[in-house]
Amino acid sequence: MAQKTILSAIAGGTVTAPRGFLAGATHIGLKAGAKDSPDLGILYSQVPCTAAGVFTSSKIKAAPVILCQRHISDGKAQAIVVNAGCANACTGERGLDDAAEMAALAARKLGIAPQEALVASTGLIGASLPMEPIRAGIEAISPSGEGGHELARAILTTDTSHKQIAVAVELDGSRFTVAGIAKGAGMIHPNLATLLCFLTTDAAVDAGFLSLALQRAVGDSFNMITIDGDTSPNDTVLILANGLAGNEMIAEGALDAEAFQAALGQVCTYLARCIARDGEGATKLIEVSVEGGLTSADARVAARTIASSPLVKAAVHGSDPNWGRIVAALGRSGAEVATSKVDLYLNDVCLMKAGCPLPVDGGLLRAAMEGTEIAIRVCLNLGQGMATAWGCDLSEEYVTINSAYTT
Amino acid sequence: MAQKTILSAIAGGTVTAPRGFLAGATHIGLKAGAKDSPDLGILYSQVPCTAAGVFTSSKIKAAPVILCQRHISDGKAQAIVVNAGCANACTGERGLDDAAEMAALAARKLGIAPQEALVASTGLIGASLPMEPIRAGIEAISPSGEGGHELARAILTTDTSHKQIAVAVELDGSRFTVAGIAKGAGMIHPNLATLLCFLTTDAAVDAGFLSLALQRAVGDSFNMITIDGDTSPNDTVLILANGLAGNEMIAEGALDAEAFQAALGQVCTYLARCIARDGEGATKLIEVSVEGGLTSADARVAARTIASSPLVKAAVHGSDPNWGRIVAALGRSGAEVATSKVDLYLNDVCLMKAGCPLPVDGGLLRAAMEGTEIAIRVCLNLGQGMATAWGCDLSEEYVTINSAYTT
Repeated sequence: MAQKTILSAIAGGTVTAPRGFLAGATHIGLKAGAKDSPDLGILYSQVPCTAAGVFTSSKIKAAPVILCQRHISDGKAQAIVVNAGCANACTGERGLDDAAEMAALAARKLGIAPQEALVASTGLIGASLPMEPIRAGIEAISPSGEGGHELARAILTTDTSHKQIAVAVELDGSRFTVAGIAKGAGMIHPNLATLLCFLTTDAAVDAGFLSLALQRAVGDSFNMITIDGDTSPNDTVLILANGLAGNEMIAEGALDAEAFQAALGQVCTYLARCIARDGEGATKLIEVSVEGGLTSADARVAARTIASSPLVKAAVHGSDPNWGRIVAALGRSGAEVATSKVDLYLNDVCLMKAGCPLPVDGGLLRAAMEGTEIAIRVCLNLGQGMATAWGCDLSEEYVTINSAYTT
Repeated sequence: MAQKTILSAIAGGTVTAPRGFLAGATHIGLKAGAKDSPDLGILYSQVPCTAAGVFTSSKIKAAPVILCQRHISDGKAQAIVVNAGCANACTGERGLDDAAEMAALAARKLGIAPQEALVASTGLIGASLPMEPIRAGIEAISPSGEGGHELARAILTTDTSHKQIAVAVELDGSRFTVAGIAKGAGMIHPNLATLLCFLTTDAAVDAGFLSLALQRAVGDSFNMITIDGDTSPNDTVLILANGLAGNEMIAEGALDAEAFQAALGQVCTYLARCIARDGEGATKLIEVSVEGGLTSADARVAARTIASSPLVKAAVHGSDPNWGRIVAALGRSGAEVATSKVDLYLNDVCLMKAGCPLPVDGGLLRAAMEGTEIAIRVCLNLGQGMATAWGCDLSEEYVTINSAYTT
């Protein structure tokens, strides 16, 4: 960044930290067994926003995803209404009607056009939304400047803690904030690996650049985490930019574009790591860095494959430095690999150099594996491609949680 | 098949059922904790064979795989020497030397050229073979016509039972036998998901057709099973055809070609199902049939993705008819899917018709889920593509087993 830029996290910051954003949530009983826990919420900007979204790559898309893609196609939005506990996926025509009604109800309450309201749902697939409590619930929500925390709780399902962050950006001529909340890839009752993330900023950002910046940030964060390889029909990342910071409109190549991208990247990476660490039954965060890939795509697929290998994850769970499993995952990843060039490090201990195993102090290594963050580093020594992926260990708890859902 | 063909399983049949095949095994202490269990073996034909192989798709190939590919390139072989307990993978130049020495030792003992001996290993990655006991072990093995059973045990690692079959084929003018043994995709100490399968037949088969027939059979069997998505550097399927049945040489389009392909398919599918059922910690076999795919490739990827979904596997383990997870896996599989056309059956109960959930008796469905074989059927209603995949449930035991390997 050519100009002086300061990025600083705001203590306890959430999506209502940027100017002009209000949020609120209520409990309508959608999450079975979660008494009093909020499960329906609204995020709202007092002025119109440019907006962008990234959605599930699944061929089977939940009704709210289909609706969101339609409403956001003009690059504008002003509110998001969201529920947890029911995914409104595989619900046919009725599901689309229900999602449209959620948007319309929120829009009427907030005095905006229905097209300006976006919708997200997370929870059980194949069940229709109970519209009576949703109608009453939307009416009951009172968005406020402190409501971001409550909204961060409302979108959770099996997460053990809420995930939120706000980053203040100070530049020579301007100051703005980028913030986000997310829910993780837990898969226990009543939800399916559904990733939701809502981002807000008071920066003025051109819609085209906003979409591009979001795709880049998601590519290096939410697209690089894995809990168990399953993708839900509901995955949704949305960003609203309301311009109340009064900065000059940020577009591709603008002076502040790089700082905005950096802040957005920081927010997304923080939330993505939170999600990986809080995976179903997880006790450890796994960070896999791959360097020297023939291409970036090679490095990305290698990092993701290692982070998602059940064998690697199970070994990490047991603090077992069974590095052969890392090499096996690398080999099957599809990335270009020359066996005789591969170096492998586990928590900074080199285990393999140029494809040959090195003698290592097993006790030292096992001790390092006892930590709650495990770093795997692979040097392919073929080119300049680099990537980092995050995952978590695979525990008996994951299976226990996911083997009894409707029973 | 135009002519009359009878395929019949031979009770207790194994790789020494076809004429002229001998086998033997011995214990040299390669499998830690497995006292007296055989871990080194030889399979041998009394006359030269045409031969073919299918090997791991991993970019990181174990030394025995590299050697096998070299030795089998002329379509001929006469013996296989195999060990369990050490994969001889990621072992650099020494690994290649060790694999070559194993082949040379077996060849000298059997009085054949080293090039006619194939080698396979399964076990820990990154450890070199202890060559002293292997030299003595190869010397000690006495192949016999009853030795197939012992060899079937010698190649096991974490499998709970051996896997073997022999099928007799009777045609108008000839009679031959196709047989096989396999070890499964268990991943506990001391091995990595390594699939080994050795097939024998006394039919005379043209080398080119043998290779083609093997690829077809493997494509519909071993390539359609999944335990946890990890592929090892050691996966090896080999077939030896010694011609002692005295039949007319079978080539593509020959009168007996179809019967041979059918018998080979039956042997491979039987062994593949055995492997899926005996997956690490597994308690249930999952069979996923996909019909109506736009292409066969679509049907195959859909079936495999559903069978490998951790969420589907965990639900099956808990006898939980959580069918939304099946649909989610289908959606992310990459197969062409039109949500509004999908029908879904679980153990013959229709749960979703044309993309909409049907009302089902939950108790009845849960009762069906209690069985040890779970059938999932998906009709995509887009074309003629069909495929079947096999997998197993995901249990806490899988994690327990795989979280403590070297510790």
